[in-house]
Amino acid sequence: MSIQDQQEEKNKAADWLQSVRWNSATDSLDLLDQRQLPDEIVYLELTTSEQVWDAIKQLAVRGAPAIGIAAAYGVYLGARDTSGSLELLLAETVKQCDYLATSRPTAVNLFWALERMKQRATELASAGGEPEAMKQSLLDEAKLIQSEDEETCRLIGVHALDLFEDGMGVLTHCNAGGLATARYGTALAPMYLAQERGIHLKVFADETRPVLQGARLTAFELQQAGVDVTLICDNMAGVVMSKGWVQAVIVGTDRVAANGDVANKIGTYSVAVLAKAHGIPFYVACPMSTIDLNTANGADIPIEERHEDEITQGFGKRTAPKGVKVFNPAFDITPNEYVTAIITEKGVIRAPYHENLKKLFE
Amino acid sequence: MSIQDQQEEKNKAADWLQSVRWNSATDSLDLLDQRQLPDEIVYLELTTSEQVWDAIKQLAVRGAPAIGIAAAYGVYLGARDTSGSLELLLAETVKQCDYLATSRPTAVNLFWALERMKQRATELASAGGEPEAMKQSLLDEAKLIQSEDEETCRLIGVHALDLFEDGMGVLTHCNAGGLATARYGTALAPMYLAQERGIHLKVFADETRPVLQGARLTAFELQQAGVDVTLICDNMAGVVMSKGWVQAVIVGTDRVAANGDVANKIGTYSVAVLAKAHGIPFYVACPMSTIDLNTANGADIPIEERHEDEITQGFGKRTAPKGVKVFNPAFDITPNEYVTAIITEKGVIRAPYHENLKKLFE
Repeated sequence: MSIQDQQEEKNKAADWLQSVRWNSATDSLDLLDQRQLPDEIVYLELTTSEQVWDAIKQLAVRGAPAIGIAAAYGVYLGARDTSGSLELLLAETVKQCDYLATSRPTAVNLFWALERMKQRATELASAGGEPEAMKQSLLDEAKLIQSEDEETCRLIGVHALDLFEDGMGVLTHCNAGGLATARYGTALAPMYLAQERGIHLKVFADETRPVLQGARLTAFELQQAGVDVTLICDNMAGVVMSKGWVQAVIVGTDRVAANGDVANKIGTYSVAVLAKAHGIPFYVACPMSTIDLNTANGADIPIEERHEDEITQGFGKRTAPKGVKVFNPAFDITPNEYVTAIITEKGVIRAPYHENLKKLFE
Repeated sequence: MSIQDQQEEKNKAADWLQSVRWNSATDSLDLLDQRQLPDEIVYLELTTSEQVWDAIKQLAVRGAPAIGIAAAYGVYLGARDTSGSLELLLAETVKQCDYLATSRPTAVNLFWALERMKQRATELASAGGEPEAMKQSLLDEAKLIQSEDEETCRLIGVHALDLFEDGMGVLTHCNAGGLATARYGTALAPMYLAQERGIHLKVFADETRPVLQGARLTAFELQQAGVDVTLICDNMAGVVMSKGWVQAVIVGTDRVAANGDVANKIGTYSVAVLAKAHGIPFYVACPMSTIDLNTANGADIPIEERHEDEITQGFGKRTAPKGVKVFNPAFDITPNEYVTAIITEKGVIRAPYHENLKKLFE
């Protein structure tokens, strides 16, 4: 069975919460509408690239890998009704890629996935053959992107799980979960694999103010999967650690610098400092594509400051005085000395990071 | 001018946000309706003890000292229309005290203030004299309770301010402010005194999930007073410290044990650990009445767990999946080794706390 066929089988059989799934029966993209979580589990049935564009734009799908996968399927949906020569099909595919790239201007994974679809289309057109076969191959490429992402996450989970033991308490911050990827996620991957293998982990999910990804997404997807998860406010992480309930912290990351400094959702740094003070290992899980050897250290990573409304009226109701000054950074930097290990699909990397991260790419 | 007359002058002239103020022009108790904060500043004009009872019950007034003061004025309001002998007036006063005590069954300061009013009434009745004069003396006693609380808080502020310098950044958690007391508060007292003296402090207020006392009350009252305050989410405290923006942390407390362990709003422990990791002093401000030498250490202080709704739908809107497990302790214990000093109206106490707290009461 090809990787693509395997992916299709998985999509059909999935009993987990898939952010993106190809529906071969209806030849459509079924997209979990993350805007409705955790209240409702609704899949949007998308049959055109315009619908995919909208879904990305309107945040129905979030998480860099999940967006890339959705866009790749969107390319196929946009090109499949083209009739005529291979050249016409190639031109239409390229057009669709350029169009879908405008849905979320800052999403690196989106551009990467669309570039890959474009290159594949160019290869296929050069190789010749029937337009219908080329369309099928484009769909196969999208499935391959999905499969590869799932495999990357699964491998991260395998390596991470080596660090955990049955009965351990594990704390996580924000959402680096299956909802953001094809499956498993990064920081949550070991929790899903543990569940598959009958290993019990007790997960503590920080709610992650101001946008509450921990409450809305992490607690939700782990609960759906039957993982033992307890939701806490961010300011309770210290107490949970002091009680001896946590034996490991694991988080995702938006970028790892060449020296091992880690950019991640605001609050990650506080969790890392608390973990160190309690002698608890602090792990960072990410695909190799997140490690940026061109960024020397954390100080070189720009930190976006977001709108004060997220803090002063983040729940549709004003909870702070009008006109109050607010500091609302979206991310923070955790210096490498707080990072016990970085877990990638290629294995577990430890300090000295400057040296060992470089080796990873050699 | 007597202390009572001084208090009356202050009440009239107050340009700060008073939680409780006696209005001699209308012979009524003006109570800041804290339920409407930070949206609206509304004073309730209370003229009967029933109205005071309701205001306490319905949380229009909060903060242990402020509740005690309001209740003391309530006793006068309840007794002032009694006609007849001193004995009848005493009986009515005692009845009013017992009635007001039922407004909030667990508030220690409430009982303390009402017991004091009862004793004062007994003394006055024994001493003889006109019933009208006794009524005036009961009102004076309520004013004295208010004055004494203000003076206690002011002295805490004076001692605390000795530890601060112009230009410093100070972080606080929850609300130990003027709204909870007659004026100044405990942890916020040095900020108000600094403001009076032209000393500039840059205050960071943790929003304090789940109930957001920092956002709703601390940020509000400091903003009203013109203090330089910046609101942050609890998980941003670490980043603000790492940037070198904070030179001191100061918080209030619900109870200090004989060994200097400190019970305070959930999240205080995390802040204390972060402060220590950044070499920042961590101060606790409280009246001596909060120090309980009968509690040996923090482990002996019971920690209330509150309803999960505060975390899962704390803003009137569900933000976490239904049925998710939640851990929601209302308080935490900060062990004495994290406490740089405890600041009371009698001065600054440092380790060894077991010894030095005991000396304070000798």
